[in-house]
Amino acid sequence: MAGGAGTRLWPVSRDSMPKQFITLLDDGLSTFQATLLRVAGAPFGKPIVITNHEFRFVAAEQMQAVGVAGEIVLEPERRDSAAAVAVGALLARGQSRDAVAVALAADHVIMDAARFRADCLTAAELAAGGLIMTLGIVPTAPSTAYGYIEAGESLDRPGASRLARFVEKPDVETAQGYLDRGFLWNSGNFVFSAATMIEELTQFSPEVLAGAGAALDAAKADLDFLRLDPTAFAAVTRISIDYAVMEKTRKAGVLAAGFDWSDIGSWDSIHEVIDKDNRGNVIHGSVVAMDSANSLLRSDDMLVTAIGLRDMVVVATRDAVLVAARSEAAKVKTLVEQMKKEGRPEATEHLRMYRPWGWYQRIDLGARFQVKHIMVKPGGKLSLQKHFHRSEHWIVVRGTAEVTLDGTVSHIHENESIYLPIGCTHRLANPGRIELELIEVQVGSYTGEDDIVRLEDVYARA
Amino acid sequence: MAGGAGTRLWPVSRDSMPKQFITLLDDGLSTFQATLLRVAGAPFGKPIVITNHEFRFVAAEQMQAVGVAGEIVLEPERRDSAAAVAVGALLARGQSRDAVAVALAADHVIMDAARFRADCLTAAELAAGGLIMTLGIVPTAPSTAYGYIEAGESLDRPGASRLARFVEKPDVETAQGYLDRGFLWNSGNFVFSAATMIEELTQFSPEVLAGAGAALDAAKADLDFLRLDPTAFAAVTRISIDYAVMEKTRKAGVLAAGFDWSDIGSWDSIHEVIDKDNRGNVIHGSVVAMDSANSLLRSDDMLVTAIGLRDMVVVATRDAVLVAARSEAAKVKTLVEQMKKEGRPEATEHLRMYRPWGWYQRIDLGARFQVKHIMVKPGGKLSLQKHFHRSEHWIVVRGTAEVTLDGTVSHIHENESIYLPIGCTHRLANPGRIELELIEVQVGSYTGEDDIVRLEDVYARA
Repeated sequence: MAGGAGTRLWPVSRDSMPKQFITLLDDGLSTFQATLLRVAGAPFGKPIVITNHEFRFVAAEQMQAVGVAGEIVLEPERRDSAAAVAVGALLARGQSRDAVAVALAADHVIMDAARFRADCLTAAELAAGGLIMTLGIVPTAPSTAYGYIEAGESLDRPGASRLARFVEKPDVETAQGYLDRGFLWNSGNFVFSAATMIEELTQFSPEVLAGAGAALDAAKADLDFLRLDPTAFAAVTRISIDYAVMEKTRKAGVLAAGFDWSDIGSWDSIHEVIDKDNRGNVIHGSVVAMDSANSLLRSDDMLVTAIGLRDMVVVATRDAVLVAARSEAAKVKTLVEQMKKEGRPEATEHLRMYRPWGWYQRIDLGARFQVKHIMVKPGGKLSLQKHFHRSEHWIVVRGTAEVTLDGTVSHIHENESIYLPIGCTHRLANPGRIELELIEVQVGSYTGEDDIVRLEDVYARA
Repeated sequence: MAGGAGTRLWPVSRDSMPKQFITLLDDGLSTFQATLLRVAGAPFGKPIVITNHEFRFVAAEQMQAVGVAGEIVLEPERRDSAAAVAVGALLARGQSRDAVAVALAADHVIMDAARFRADCLTAAELAAGGLIMTLGIVPTAPSTAYGYIEAGESLDRPGASRLARFVEKPDVETAQGYLDRGFLWNSGNFVFSAATMIEELTQFSPEVLAGAGAALDAAKADLDFLRLDPTAFAAVTRISIDYAVMEKTRKAGVLAAGFDWSDIGSWDSIHEVIDKDNRGNVIHGSVVAMDSANSLLRSDDMLVTAIGLRDMVVVATRDAVLVAARSEAAKVKTLVEQMKKEGRPEATEHLRMYRPWGWYQRIDLGARFQVKHIMVKPGGKLSLQKHFHRSEHWIVVRGTAEVTLDGTVSHIHENESIYLPIGCTHRLANPGRIELELIEVQVGSYTGEDDIVRLEDVYARA
């Protein structure tokens, strides 16, 4: 399940590229990639990735980068976890009537992969017997950020029980009581047989199952993706699998998992998960710290300096900086909501925008001009397009560009440029073996992204 | 005295453009400009500005912008305040044997200009009688950031006394004792007759006076500037006027000034000086603050967000961010020294570099290319130059460029471009009435600033 749009790790995570696709830890992987690798190879089958259609290219690219093949199912819009679980269960049952599925969030951190796999197998044995197993986490602190699970009657596997009840996120005092009574954190990851999940959905959320089924029946293949039918999917109730099934079914079980786990739901939890230096700091990127302790200091761009910080979070990107008390880092969500209302583009969009052909990033902006740095992957090809309000100058600084200008194709090499007059039809492609980089200088009365007419597109965006 | 290179307000103030030339308060003026305006018009004469040669164009431009004419004397290198006071005294005596001079730091904040002028006049009356008057400040707190002055025998002007002694920056306890005993802060601003200062320099620091005199005798007019002789000036002892004269002379007096004063020696003191909102915050630029109090939040570029801050300083520029506890903001000086040792360009240089003809700013940098945004003022003209390692593409995005390329002059208008091959001689000028802006894309194996041969320059830099 990789369709979420986490704002709690803003400004690094934004709607245009949410946290599951970003490298947050020191392993050089996104949590989406780490999750895929965790279930790669037997006894696990090929993964079914369910994500939002906007993330289709980044998902495909990141899967390819770690060598994991699988099906990518695209949700036309956000519909919470019940719809995703229903789609997954239907697809899994299509593969095999006895299929056992592991439903995983793509934005969780689990360090001990071996233990995770072992726990999945234990849970799968119980799931094959008809239980829907929740992976419960042994709490390390009376957290108020998670829901809790009370275990019931023990089952014949170590750590496994019937699930007595789910309880909502508590206050600290209540949380301490839960810890004393051995409650577990609800990780939101489940193991179940597809048939059982479908039975329980039929009983407790038939409209979700029917909607998911209809969206799947009318789904269309789009390049390498399976695109759920927009009309059918839009009709599906927006509900979590916890509310839709888990709190109602009598087949719920829980396994006290043996691995460390974090849902990295805030910068504070990122600080918690990563190894710290001897002053308790997590430092990433171009940072100079003086007399500072127990802080997370991250820069993805400019130099960040810190003096006398205690328990702080500083996260800097090219166009936005967050400075927060670590204990209040979870309020980022509220901050971002407020900024969305104010229409601030930094709330939702990254400066570097990823596209199936590569990326572009604005590097300068004036009243009547805009400058972009554009990278096109080998073989990448932008749409055939035209603009009504701007001319463009392209200067190639690396690689070779194939430029189609009003039907005429030419090749522009490093240190060469081409002028695209207002209104011309043009297309940019990289026919070479190395990345193409160019500087685009737009001049005109309006340089907004929406002044574009796409006449033709190899990525089916026209 | 405008030659200092304040690092305490880094990253806004850097060696390449120090704090006296930067707009720090809400008045839209640099402290240099505010200082000039404070002494503009009778009974004050034209100011003598003493600054480092590197700041000559910005000083001239800022004087012009506020309509203040005066002499600009250039120090070839930094030599502390005794040399500057000696040069000023010699120049003032050259104007009139009875000249009374006010020696002012260009980086101090004084809000009540009328009271300041009145105090200067009072001090000037005493100075005409042969005293060297220090402007003493009535302390508002037991500050450890300032030196103190003990007043002696009263003089026949309200608030004026003989100066009993200077004391060094104390610890807090000692400072409280000084307050209890009525000591004043030493503001480092003085009023004296030129003849008296020269007499006292002759007696106590003859080598400073002789060196300053020699540097002035051999000074050369350079455009509108008076450039002190580098060899003679280099030989002058590096010493403050406090040590060179004030602590030794028997002619020292002090006037308890009636105006509020700050030397804005740290971001904490900027917070102190500026009006705060109802949560005690000073907010400047693109900032969103949530649950934060008593903090200084300033952005000169990207969006800065704050959650749960107390008594913090956050200052963001395009290429560097400072986050500091307000109480430790004075350590910025140490931080910058450390970064200078590490050779970090952000420690000393701004991203936007001001030149006599306008400015340039790097907007992108890669292994074999660099992109700059260049602004040329109407009438501005860059040097005739060539590069050995890079070609350049210029795209005009505003105004008209006059480009000389291997001897041929052409005019490049908005939305036109020109290519400057490696090794060609070229020159850029703005012949028009509005600012010229262009995007320069450099491509080559080396794009450093030092790959430049200046063949000719209207600003005498060749």
